[in-house]
Amino acid sequence: MTASSTSCPPATSETGDPLLLTPGPLTTSRTVKAAMVHDWGSRDANFIEINRSVLTRLASIANGAGDWVTVPMQGSGTFAVEAMLTTFVPANGEVLVLINGAYGKRAKRILEIAGRKTVVHETPEDTPPDLAQVEALLASKPSITHVFTIHCETTSGILNPIAQIGALAHKYGKGYLVDSMSAFGALPLDVQTMHIDAVAASSNKCIEGVPGLGFVICRREALSRTQGNATTLVLDLHEQWTNMEKTSQYRFTPPTHVIVAFHQALNEFDAEGGVAGRGARYRNNCRILLEGMRALGFKPLLPDALQAPIIVTFHMPEDPRFVFPQFYESLKARGYVIYPGKLTVADSFRIGCIGRIGEKEMRAALAAIGEVLEEMGAAGVGVTGPVAKTA
Amino acid sequence: MTASSTSCPPATSETGDPLLLTPGPLTTSRTVKAAMVHDWGSRDANFIEINRSVLTRLASIANGAGDWVTVPMQGSGTFAVEAMLTTFVPANGEVLVLINGAYGKRAKRILEIAGRKTVVHETPEDTPPDLAQVEALLASKPSITHVFTIHCETTSGILNPIAQIGALAHKYGKGYLVDSMSAFGALPLDVQTMHIDAVAASSNKCIEGVPGLGFVICRREALSRTQGNATTLVLDLHEQWTNMEKTSQYRFTPPTHVIVAFHQALNEFDAEGGVAGRGARYRNNCRILLEGMRALGFKPLLPDALQAPIIVTFHMPEDPRFVFPQFYESLKARGYVIYPGKLTVADSFRIGCIGRIGEKEMRAALAAIGEVLEEMGAAGVGVTGPVAKTA
Repeated sequence: MTASSTSCPPATSETGDPLLLTPGPLTTSRTVKAAMVHDWGSRDANFIEINRSVLTRLASIANGAGDWVTVPMQGSGTFAVEAMLTTFVPANGEVLVLINGAYGKRAKRILEIAGRKTVVHETPEDTPPDLAQVEALLASKPSITHVFTIHCETTSGILNPIAQIGALAHKYGKGYLVDSMSAFGALPLDVQTMHIDAVAASSNKCIEGVPGLGFVICRREALSRTQGNATTLVLDLHEQWTNMEKTSQYRFTPPTHVIVAFHQALNEFDAEGGVAGRGARYRNNCRILLEGMRALGFKPLLPDALQAPIIVTFHMPEDPRFVFPQFYESLKARGYVIYPGKLTVADSFRIGCIGRIGEKEMRAALAAIGEVLEEMGAAGVGVTGPVAKTA
Repeated sequence: MTASSTSCPPATSETGDPLLLTPGPLTTSRTVKAAMVHDWGSRDANFIEINRSVLTRLASIANGAGDWVTVPMQGSGTFAVEAMLTTFVPANGEVLVLINGAYGKRAKRILEIAGRKTVVHETPEDTPPDLAQVEALLASKPSITHVFTIHCETTSGILNPIAQIGALAHKYGKGYLVDSMSAFGALPLDVQTMHIDAVAASSNKCIEGVPGLGFVICRREALSRTQGNATTLVLDLHEQWTNMEKTSQYRFTPPTHVIVAFHQALNEFDAEGGVAGRGARYRNNCRILLEGMRALGFKPLLPDALQAPIIVTFHMPEDPRFVFPQFYESLKARGYVIYPGKLTVADSFRIGCIGRIGEKEMRAALAAIGEVLEEMGAAGVGVTGPVAKTA
């Protein structure tokens, strides 16, 4: 990290690292990472008990204790999403995929590679699905077997109406598969009342663990009907589940250290008050960020009603004095890592509200952003207003 | 860990954990694990440079610098093997699978699930492939496109003749795919002279990193011809490679902490003298283990000429005074975690020679084994001789 002419010292996490204002990997606590400074045998009783506790608690967070079971998947969140889609949707299935960002598109691609039929309802990145159109599709196409949607699309940060979509899937007797990657643990999720058959997430988002493990919370009865659906060995959730029920072990080497850290992260999650406590801190982070960035002249992509308290997309100022690579590097030199945009509808960048950060860190980040704007001679640039891409 | 009536204090690793005498996850150094007590942004320049260094060094270890490229795969070693097989073997390919243990069988299953044709040459778990029969198959079946084998089958610990098999694959113009999971870094591996198109391994074996990352070292020219072969999104090595060449980033969240630990493990591997130094320590561990266990009356499955210095399979003594669960637990209470057997040909258990352990730890393990035998009233049981399973 290079020194720069700043009035504030560089920010750091509890372990002296830059703060990751990103959608994950994110800043985790020192104690979560310290849990990894041990080795565990993957077939040993102590590790097996830690793993069992992790899986049981994840299902409970989604109100799925009893009839739902958590099936872990080594890799990353996308490994869990591909495992969920290719295990739950049979060869002759057809999935209504709701798309308003890159992750919805990715799910469609996974299904296509696996040879599953898809029907798409796509809306712009700043627009939730049109529930009337979704219902019309479900009513008119009886060949649809499943509905897939994304809880919070981190492409924009938009919150999608997963409860209402679940009600429609239930009404028309369809399976319901949800990607809650960046929302799980911070936003309410009830697999029972939302009629969810399977929901995928990962270790390195709002539970604040480190990356390396995905998981899918599956309705036991629906999962039990998926034998033979999977198109791969390693991503077969049915086999991962039945083997773990039988042996308590993973079929293939688990990321032991990542899982032990995840266990510690769940302890800290519980201590913060679970979804209510974690969500409250993130909502406060998001509120501070939005107020502060608006005061600096930046304009968020989404109206507040659609903004999930996970990651905020800001329009890129048009003023030529605002040079994004310089903005990014100067913030990094001050100890804040932000995220480039991923929108197709407008030039943008993103700032996350999740991870081991609170009010103090958000205010310090805003102060640093103000300083960087001054340094660039670009104070108030955002006020000139963003212009949507015309290309 | 419970106290037990032992003359020696429980063994521990540098971080106070039981010693893992297993084929991985294994005991790693304190410094490898301590590298994980930081957070890294997965798209940040510092992490990207660490990852680049890891991938470059892995190819060099196999003498593949230049024409071979390392493609990482999140998950575990089996994820890398499935990615290798399903990316390199096209839909109309046919693989000669050499089997003498569970990992060869697993490769066959992966190929069958992916709809790839297989031809099998299977030998018992204590017997290497018959090279004359392998050549006869290659000569008589021109439809074979690839040969697959396992470097060290951890089912038994047997060393397979990968150079000779590679020479045959080359002679008949076949692609050559190798699983070197448990051998990579400890046994010589030369992708050039062995005519290897792709070889898979993982972070948590002889390089002594932690689990969570697999990788495949691929001949660039062969990999470049694999576009569209893969049957999944996440396990597509061609896309993982082209995306990383273009952006230096992973397509999907990488296990950042695992990769940073792997980088530190590679530093320590180099400091030990690379394959020569690491292999010498493991060979010494293996020699001490074999001598000591023979002196205690145990009989290894394999003749020394076939024994790789990775993991040793011992016949289970028939004497009823030897109760394996008690043996396992008493050793664990003393700080040594061993491994159950996986053989079909005989009742057995396994003890690993790999990880952050040396002469002192191996001798201490042998002393503990001697004590446990005394405690069980079973000193010298092995001497009564093993009997092969008749079932």
